[in-house]
Amino acid sequence: MSGIGIKASGGVIYPHGWKAAGVAAEVKYRNRRDFAMVVSESVATVAGVFTTNAMAAAPVRYNRALVKGGKVRAFTVNTGFANACTGARGEEDVLATARLAAEALGVPAGEVAVSSTGVIGALLPMDRIEAGIRLAVPALAATPEAADAAARAIMTTDTVPKQVSAAFEVEGREVRIGGMSKGAGMIEPNMATMLAFVTTDAAVAAVDLDAVVREAAGASFNRIVIDNDRSTNDSLFLAANGASGVALAPGKPGWDDFREAVKGACLCLAKQNVMDGEGASKFATVTVTGAKSDADAQLAARAIARSMLVKTSWYGADPNWGRVICAVGYSGAAAEESKTTIRYSGIPAFERGRVAGARELEAMARALKEREILLEVDLGLGGGACTIYTSDLTHEYVNINADYTT
Amino acid sequence: MSGIGIKASGGVIYPHGWKAAGVAAEVKYRNRRDFAMVVSESVATVAGVFTTNAMAAAPVRYNRALVKGGKVRAFTVNTGFANACTGARGEEDVLATARLAAEALGVPAGEVAVSSTGVIGALLPMDRIEAGIRLAVPALAATPEAADAAARAIMTTDTVPKQVSAAFEVEGREVRIGGMSKGAGMIEPNMATMLAFVTTDAAVAAVDLDAVVREAAGASFNRIVIDNDRSTNDSLFLAANGASGVALAPGKPGWDDFREAVKGACLCLAKQNVMDGEGASKFATVTVTGAKSDADAQLAARAIARSMLVKTSWYGADPNWGRVICAVGYSGAAAEESKTTIRYSGIPAFERGRVAGARELEAMARALKEREILLEVDLGLGGGACTIYTSDLTHEYVNINADYTT
Repeated sequence: MSGIGIKASGGVIYPHGWKAAGVAAEVKYRNRRDFAMVVSESVATVAGVFTTNAMAAAPVRYNRALVKGGKVRAFTVNTGFANACTGARGEEDVLATARLAAEALGVPAGEVAVSSTGVIGALLPMDRIEAGIRLAVPALAATPEAADAAARAIMTTDTVPKQVSAAFEVEGREVRIGGMSKGAGMIEPNMATMLAFVTTDAAVAAVDLDAVVREAAGASFNRIVIDNDRSTNDSLFLAANGASGVALAPGKPGWDDFREAVKGACLCLAKQNVMDGEGASKFATVTVTGAKSDADAQLAARAIARSMLVKTSWYGADPNWGRVICAVGYSGAAAEESKTTIRYSGIPAFERGRVAGARELEAMARALKEREILLEVDLGLGGGACTIYTSDLTHEYVNINADYTT
Repeated sequence: MSGIGIKASGGVIYPHGWKAAGVAAEVKYRNRRDFAMVVSESVATVAGVFTTNAMAAAPVRYNRALVKGGKVRAFTVNTGFANACTGARGEEDVLATARLAAEALGVPAGEVAVSSTGVIGALLPMDRIEAGIRLAVPALAATPEAADAAARAIMTTDTVPKQVSAAFEVEGREVRIGGMSKGAGMIEPNMATMLAFVTTDAAVAAVDLDAVVREAAGASFNRIVIDNDRSTNDSLFLAANGASGVALAPGKPGWDDFREAVKGACLCLAKQNVMDGEGASKFATVTVTGAKSDADAQLAARAIARSMLVKTSWYGADPNWGRVICAVGYSGAAAEESKTTIRYSGIPAFERGRVAGARELEAMARALKEREILLEVDLGLGGGACTIYTSDLTHEYVNINADYTT
């Protein structure tokens, strides 16, 4: 781990052999980039994790089948429309997009992953998708500008693009990892929510990528809560093209560094998503320790992170720890008043039955004025632990979401 | 059922043999009623349902034991402080309150139920509770003014008092039911949330009351969602003093009318709670039908009613049905895009894969400007059904909850 460098920049083209483009195809709006492609110079292995939503969008169903084949050459992404709840026509449009991109690139259609994000229940404007491909293919480049353009083209109500790069050495040779993502939860009010693309120039078998991407998702994108909606389109891809000449596999040199680097890159992107949550003014780290089990700790941390009352109290810089202990109480986790400790920024609010005094409340109120909030809950019952990253609930969230489609 | 009359007025003193009082005891604030008592002229039977929160407040733990005895003579209620997370001292304060009220009334302390609502984690000001009892006992009366005063004295951020009365005849003799409640969820930002007291002048064994109160809670207070927090203090009591001279029991005349009347009275109070939800501008009825089971229907209806994205879309009168189908998709209920139908005010938004056109969207947007919203979801899979009552998410909710304790 000591040798892994992770930076919140660089993007999907940082590993060797990857190119990207982001173009303005007028898919839904004018004057913005809204169609992206990420392409490998040689066929890559691929794995992915996808939404558990029963109404999974047509492109998600298509990509689930694609990653089973384990091969990818290119990704297309449009913003504006999610191609969700679009029936048979939605499925045809995914296949047509893959075919058009494959023709333009001269690769098999079965090696093109197709993603969409935006409004649910509207058909894709296929002429604009076709225009996007026509514009993107000649623009593909392995430059920071191209990576930035791609990261911008997948945004919906995100206010900044999200990118990451990571690198480590295996026996003197460098392996690179790059990635980009767009918002989670509040960031995407249509629940066409979270898309993330992570690339590497290591050579890794698809089955091994699959294990790594699941582990990384569990420690990153599955540890953030903005609002509580799981989208129809959530997707995280991990693709490996081998351009570094370094082959990685479980039990071989560099494997653990690779796992940690992918995990770190995903966590970096996930935190960027939270930071840019719709209307979010604060970033909160909620850590629960001392639970009877890790599962209990997760129940408690999620209940806190989801509580509208807790989230509005953060917005108001109000150290209302009663809302926190109440959320723990109804979370389903084993908990006892007399064993529970709650701290904001290290200051005890409630310590095994002892209630904070006026001076402590004042100190917490000051700490809660900062942009980053640390909330620690110790249940005093065992060794279970979980950390969740989340944001506050603000007027701006209501502004953004009370008027989106109309 | 045809003979049951239910009105949103009347209150806990409507049945014979019950008195109430609501007084200004300066428990926390000046110039408002904040201490209430409800007293029966003879010993009554009692049952109750209480919060499942693991951090249940001291008065809730006390009342759980009290209803096991099945007898009650008086209820005390203070607002301002919830007496939750207050340790051994909190328990002593409950016992002291019961003892003081019992002495003032000349009844056994074990027949006094004690309830609190307000801020979590602060001790009760026992001198003010004592003052409340001193003021309330001589004020006890069987008048509409006294009932109104009691209903006002249990309010926290509620903006209006909630009362109900119901009556029906059994073999020519009248049985009366009365009740009052205070807010649920958003209504009480400190999660000292929902309190409801329902009285009757029928004679009913405690064990039978218990069955009725559980059934009624399941069809009323457990069918509303405002925010998602379950409080440390939620309580619903049903008490019967027999003053009507009518004895009711399962299988005997009038029993089904009694069950329906209690259910109707509880539903009437629950709807009043939703209508007065913190910052709420709209009242929404969410009905899910065609689910594989009632449990599935409830999962889907609750997911919709809890979704911050759906609730903000109601506030903005935005017929964004994509947010509704997304919530159904992640609810855990069995659901298929091609079998799902969604209607706002009877207008189809999504009909088994067919998407609403511009004219339908306009009609829905107009309907969503009304104060009452009707959302119907048919999953097309079976006979399971569930209705949930809820409210929208507004700027005012954020205003109220971003600054409460400080």
